[in-house]
Amino acid sequence: MNKTSVAKSDAGIGIFERLESEVRGYIRSFPIVFDRGVGTTLIDADGREYLDFFAGAGALNYGHNNPAFKKPLLDYIQRDGIIHGLDLATSAKRAFIEAFEKYILKPRGLNYKLQFTGPTGTNAVEAALKLARQVTKRSNVVAFTNGFHGVSAGALAATGNKKYRTAAGFSLAHVTALPYDGYLGPSVDTLDYFEKLLNDPSSGLDKPAAVILEAIQGEGGIRPANFQWLQRLRDLTKRHEILLILDDIQAGVGRSGKFFSFEAAGIVPDIVTLSKSISAVGTPMALVLLKPELDIWSPGAHSGTYRGNNLAFVAARAALETYWADNKFETEIAAKSAILADELKSIANDFPNLGLTVRGRGLMYGLVSEKDPSLPAKIQAEALRRGLVIETCGGRGEVLKFLVALIITEVDLRRGLSIVRESIGAAKLSENDVPQDLPNVS
Amino acid sequence: MNKTSVAKSDAGIGIFERLESEVRGYIRSFPIVFDRGVGTTLIDADGREYLDFFAGAGALNYGHNNPAFKKPLLDYIQRDGIIHGLDLATSAKRAFIEAFEKYILKPRGLNYKLQFTGPTGTNAVEAALKLARQVTKRSNVVAFTNGFHGVSAGALAATGNKKYRTAAGFSLAHVTALPYDGYLGPSVDTLDYFEKLLNDPSSGLDKPAAVILEAIQGEGGIRPANFQWLQRLRDLTKRHEILLILDDIQAGVGRSGKFFSFEAAGIVPDIVTLSKSISAVGTPMALVLLKPELDIWSPGAHSGTYRGNNLAFVAARAALETYWADNKFETEIAAKSAILADELKSIANDFPNLGLTVRGRGLMYGLVSEKDPSLPAKIQAEALRRGLVIETCGGRGEVLKFLVALIITEVDLRRGLSIVRESIGAAKLSENDVPQDLPNVS
Amino acid sequence: MNKTSVAKSDAGIGIFERLESEVRGYIRSFPIVFDRGVGTTLIDADGREYLDFFAGAGALNYGHNNPAFKKPLLDYIQRDGIIHGLDLATSAKRAFIEAFEKYILKPRGLNYKLQFTGPTGTNAVEAALKLARQVTKRSNVVAFTNGFHGVSAGALAATGNKKYRTAAGFSLAHVTALPYDGYLGPSVDTLDYFEKLLNDPSSGLDKPAAVILEAIQGEGGIRPANFQWLQRLRDLTKRHEILLILDDIQAGVGRSGKFFSFEAAGIVPDIVTLSKSISAVGTPMALVLLKPELDIWSPGAHSGTYRGNNLAFVAARAALETYWADNKFETEIAAKSAILADELKSIANDFPNLGLTVRGRGLMYGLVSEKDPSLPAKIQAEALRRGLVIETCGGRGEVLKFLVALIITEVDLRRGLSIVRESIGAAKLSENDVPQDLPNVS
Amino acid sequence: MNKTSVAKSDAGIGIFERLESEVRGYIRSFPIVFDRGVGTTLIDADGREYLDFFAGAGALNYGHNNPAFKKPLLDYIQRDGIIHGLDLATSAKRAFIEAFEKYILKPRGLNYKLQFTGPTGTNAVEAALKLARQVTKRSNVVAFTNGFHGVSAGALAATGNKKYRTAAGFSLAHVTALPYDGYLGPSVDTLDYFEKLLNDPSSGLDKPAAVILEAIQGEGGIRPANFQWLQRLRDLTKRHEILLILDDIQAGVGRSGKFFSFEAAGIVPDIVTLSKSISAVGTPMALVLLKPELDIWSPGAHSGTYRGNNLAFVAARAALETYWADNKFETEIAAKSAILADELKSIANDFPNLGLTVRGRGLMYGLVSEKDPSLPAKIQAEALRRGLVIETCGGRGEVLKFLVALIITEVDLRRGLSIVRESIGAAKLSENDVPQDLPNVS
Repeated sequence: MNKTSVAKSDAGIGIFERLESEVRGYIRSFPIVFDRGVGTTLIDADGREYLDFFAGAGALNYGHNNPAFKKPLLDYIQRDGIIHGLDLATSAKRAFIEAFEKYILKPRGLNYKLQFTGPTGTNAVEAALKLARQVTKRSNVVAFTNGFHGVSAGALAATGNKKYRTAAGFSLAHVTALPYDGYLGPSVDTLDYFEKLLNDPSSGLDKPAAVILEAIQGEGGIRPANFQWLQRLRDLTKRHEILLILDDIQAGVGRSGKFFSFEAAGIVPDIVTLSKSISAVGTPMALVLLKPELDIWSPGAHSGTYRGNNLAFVAARAALETYWADNKFETEIAAKSAILADELKSIANDFPNLGLTVRGRGLMYGLVSEKDPSLPAKIQAEALRRGLVIETCGGRGEVLKFLVALIITEVDLRRGLSIVRESIGAAKLSENDVPQDLPNVS
Repeated sequence: MNKTSVAKSDAGIGIFERLESEVRGYIRSFPIVFDRGVGTTLIDADGREYLDFFAGAGALNYGHNNPAFKKPLLDYIQRDGIIHGLDLATSAKRAFIEAFEKYILKPRGLNYKLQFTGPTGTNAVEAALKLARQVTKRSNVVAFTNGFHGVSAGALAATGNKKYRTAAGFSLAHVTALPYDGYLGPSVDTLDYFEKLLNDPSSGLDKPAAVILEAIQGEGGIRPANFQWLQRLRDLTKRHEILLILDDIQAGVGRSGKFFSFEAAGIVPDIVTLSKSISAVGTPMALVLLKPELDIWSPGAHSGTYRGNNLAFVAARAALETYWADNKFETEIAAKSAILADELKSIANDFPNLGLTVRGRGLMYGLVSEKDPSLPAKIQAEALRRGLVIETCGGRGEVLKFLVALIITEVDLRRGLSIVRESIGAAKLSENDVPQDLPNVS
Repeated sequence: MNKTSVAKSDAGIGIFERLESEVRGYIRSFPIVFDRGVGTTLIDADGREYLDFFAGAGALNYGHNNPAFKKPLLDYIQRDGIIHGLDLATSAKRAFIEAFEKYILKPRGLNYKLQFTGPTGTNAVEAALKLARQVTKRSNVVAFTNGFHGVSAGALAATGNKKYRTAAGFSLAHVTALPYDGYLGPSVDTLDYFEKLLNDPSSGLDKPAAVILEAIQGEGGIRPANFQWLQRLRDLTKRHEILLILDDIQAGVGRSGKFFSFEAAGIVPDIVTLSKSISAVGTPMALVLLKPELDIWSPGAHSGTYRGNNLAFVAARAALETYWADNKFETEIAAKSAILADELKSIANDFPNLGLTVRGRGLMYGLVSEKDPSLPAKIQAEALRRGLVIETCGGRGEVLKFLVALIITEVDLRRGLSIVRESIGAAKLSENDVPQDLPNVS
Repeated sequence: MNKTSVAKSDAGIGIFERLESEVRGYIRSFPIVFDRGVGTTLIDADGREYLDFFAGAGALNYGHNNPAFKKPLLDYIQRDGIIHGLDLATSAKRAFIEAFEKYILKPRGLNYKLQFTGPTGTNAVEAALKLARQVTKRSNVVAFTNGFHGVSAGALAATGNKKYRTAAGFSLAHVTALPYDGYLGPSVDTLDYFEKLLNDPSSGLDKPAAVILEAIQGEGGIRPANFQWLQRLRDLTKRHEILLILDDIQAGVGRSGKFFSFEAAGIVPDIVTLSKSISAVGTPMALVLLKPELDIWSPGAHSGTYRGNNLAFVAARAALETYWADNKFETEIAAKSAILADELKSIANDFPNLGLTVRGRGLMYGLVSEKDPSLPAKIQAEALRRGLVIETCGGRGEVLKFLVALIITEVDLRRGLSIVRESIGAAKLSENDVPQDLPNVS
């Protein structure tokens, strides 16, 4: 992309700068008007193509306009299928529930009930927290350092990032943040601390209704928890009669290598939140899974206009049938995961002075630059010049975040990684040429 | 609908009863599997047709699958338009913003900036409250009796209904509920009380960041505020440097007779929240309008995966162009509003023993049964047998809620009203035959 | 007091100005070093005498160094009686409890249990609120406009005054302020509003654990509630299973004309808080009275180092025996109350342009200057020059507060009132001579 | 004490059981009616003597009815000195302030200002927290595991003990509990964790206004913080512009060996709270010391009826003059501290099977029974039979608490320790004879 073309695109985003609130984020890192999307390719208004390495922040695990869902979607609209259904029964919703039971719950021996909430991850988290508090009659909840669970006030209290917290405008309460796996270094099992607090009647920790966590933290910097740690947490919460809420909004729906991120650890949470890629095609949807014995909801006690986004149900059902009827998809993800992990380690090794490290699981990886937290933003800018769209994350933006669509081809995966390698080299050389103060926005 | 067919439908909803959480609501009042929707007609899985008098709780002001938006939607998906865009710039989003400026803001002399939040009303309210608190550095907010602003924790604190509040599982704070217009009877201007509290240094009212209200309360029982009351509230908040947040999620987008519900009162709020029918076709979308001088947001400080639901932008743009380019639509709404109001008054008069009253504005009306709050649920059940889908609202379900699509034909409007009249008669006669304890759910 | 002598006293308070925090209050209105006190006479370090018309803000109902308690106190210390007893049993405490049962509870048919809290009013209120919340398992409490219940965080949330509230440094929660008797004018019974809120499931009022109030508001401006209003409140709280907490810290112990301020209204609260004059001699003490069926306290769950201030018990016991063994004291108070009320009305009449009004009951009266809220501070300054110590109260300091010791002689009462009358005249004439901005402090 | 005499005393406490709330605590461990106190001797109503090893929970550092203060107290009352002074200037208060400056502040190079709060420790803590929040405009405060700061709602939020916290009846907020020195074992410096949380923008820790702590935790189980840890905490809070509040209510006034508990560590807190033994004679008093630059209090913004308990000022002044004019008292304390520490270690060694450990500083020591947390209550009961009054503390009552008066004679100190040794032996032997379920009350 040469200077002229950037100028042209800039003109196109003028109306956003004039009329859209200063809260806008991604548009600042990617000042481009996008127009079309096919698989892992983004196409801007001038017809330029970009390789997409962030998949709608995890909402497009199946890529853009996946033909397997596009056809049913077009047919559904064509025949005047109900689009907006509140929480009425519709045939599209019924078909989704049947598929979810058949392809997801039954094969895994899970007997969750489904709650369709307002179609955002944060709303699913709000519902999960409410339910846990109602069931246990306790108001405190334990969340973890670097956790991200949404920005509506209930979920925000469980989110660690200061940028989001201070925007609340009041003091967030009813949540205790404890150290996530590894937070106190390799020699400390942070659950020792949690357990001591629970057993100590003078610890100041009010007994929590629930623990909420991501099995692989996303926004917080791609931090996968150790399986033993997850198993101990499951055991500890069970013994203390604390509910375990697994927020699988970003790491779920295949991202971790399995449908659920907690499967590999062999644990079963009490409540699971899903959103993002559950909708398959990127139109809003959210879901709470809850153990039947917890289902003490009063009818209508958690409402929302868009709980029945039937376009999402249509695509979601098609996705389950297409990708989760057997374990082929998981096998493919595993193969690509190995390539991604190996290549990232090789990249880290190639730049020994940068002190880069690699973290992740499945197709959710981070290249971490603790030494220079501003580096990932520079790499991002260089990559964009080379036609690659990739995100940063972590409290300081210190992580380059690899969230490729699960359906990416090996060729595109390797191509993107080459661009990253090249961009790191360029970012190192041209530190003075690129903007130093790109905000870490989302 | 005879017994047999009901039984058949019941079978169809069995999977919902087995797998969907007890929180499900509307499905209990309408135990039917809906399949298709065309304008104001709903069609169930068995091909039976229903006249729709509640328009997706206000999300379908333009009816189901309005052909004016269906075509652009199909074209957009067909050509692989970006569906999921976070808050990236897309050509569909740009077209929406241009249309919103051209058809809505400019003609009304409004200079708001736009914030695209997570695509639910409650998320727009969360953002509005955060902004007001950040701008004023105060945490308290004044809301009103019978107000409804959503069920995520921040918005929920401003919602009056006990059913929703108790589900929070903790004590909601930072909001003071004050009496809405008319709450203390016709002889008391409730703003006298508000102003006294503000002026009295010992009133116990912590100076609020903002006042949030609906100009016509929806869920709370279709209660339109008097124009003078709204004007005084605008004046009072201005004098005390308190921000005015107008929640136009249910009453906006033409529902009140104008695009915004506050237009007729001649006031300009500081912040406006929109959702529901702004998306035109019923796929999720939400929007906050804010005065430019309030736009102190930090980049990315309020995020959300589905802020860029481009299917909504496509339909929303088409709706603005189709219906709001001139004042023809408003004239049509006014005509239908007159019919609705007259007929409801006539119905109320026809059943003098029931003590029914009529409240509303535009195409947002309530038939109120204070004397027997259980009556509307019975009417609803009778109407359903006669092929009419209509909702109840109010704290006790004491209001039969008329939220017809704005594009309804006069014939269908009168047909539906006839069914209501008939259903009231039947409800009176068969009080013992219908379930007495239908929950008031949404 | 001439200029020179004032200068001399000022010198004496220099160390306070240098070393005591800016939070100091009364010393600003009365820049005098007091040394001795006898009955209603204060004597400063230079031997000057002042007539005391504010009785330690209600803590000295029996006057300074009342000989009836002074003797037992001296004897007790002389014989090494336990001074500090935590909540151990001591013979002094036992004697107090016996006397309280004999002279106060039994004759009034009250069967309260006693909780000795930390020896401050605010601590008694904290304990009362905790108990009510534990018993009902609800967290909200209703308090009233202009109420004052203390400044520790729990009690502060129930206090209306902005000066105290903002000092908290965070947003006070769990209390809803409702309009006290008369707040909405003579034509509105504010309990209509309260009852409507309770009966309306969408009012936004979370059902309270308790209502806390003063039967005669003190700091808020000497506002006696109507007996019918109190009776209706008692009835209403009973019907709704809400506890009634009567904060009798300022209006109790004879101040209202009876031992308890609620006696005259014929109601029995569920919980009563006492402090100030219960200690008789002005050394700290506080007490919570609670109905036996509410006594669900766990042993030691509300603690405090000074719960057993035995010097207070010794004096308090002597006071009960001396003044409350028969109804002679009440008769005397009634006579003096009549004089006070009549004289104040006469004074108000004598200055028709000032628009003064009179409010009160027993020996707790206010001369209210709504028209010019700065007048009472000027009167106070003039009175001080004339040897009278008198306080102001109300949110703006708009009330001159008459809180004479109950043992005042008729002569002194009339003498003080003469000084007040004279001071009003002087304050009117010399508006430019006196400081305009005396803070309203306490 | 034989069975008969116990029965007799029990009769004497009958009225407490009948009329005093179930919240009563110490009286359950010591079912005796105490009458007189002289130095370290308690005398009950039947004339029996007890050796006092808990000194009013730290409020009687100078013993009962110390003749050095008794005389001035009697003289003061005799001459009608002002007893109750609100925050008026009095000659007794002036004399106290002068003495505090002369004997405490000046010699230590401290330039604090003094705030006289309501006369309880919890009230001083409330004031300190308010001030810190006002100064920094932040609402969060960091407190520590096992900390105790009082039971009014603001202080309670900073107190760790579940017994007190749950009594609040609502969810305590605005305080984050972090691990105290040693909480995570000897190999973890808990300030590493605190500092990591402060430096990590995604830690979930809202930047605190202040850190509040005891340099030697009292109620929490006699836990002295390491001097280096205190120094690092002082440094860390300074660098992060967080105020340091040292709660010296229990460990202050000589208890630690110096006047202030923080002196030995060489740090200077921003705010200090004092109560308990500052009053010398056990009548209520509390004090906040604050750096002059923090003194942003508005006049009267923190009030309280009993801020001017002049009996306390008289005794407190005498105590400062008597004990703190030179360093003789500190030398004596040091000598007794050495005896206490040595003897406790010897006792612990004598019962190797019990796994007892010794913690403490100055004359504030604990004999810790982690292995059998019920043992201290049994020792306490045995000691009482042998005429020794001694307290337990810690979250489970696992600590036998040695809080002897600082003026104890060496003979009495050794005598009491002998009784403890004997009582441990007896408690071991007669485990079945003593009540197993003595509550841990205070």
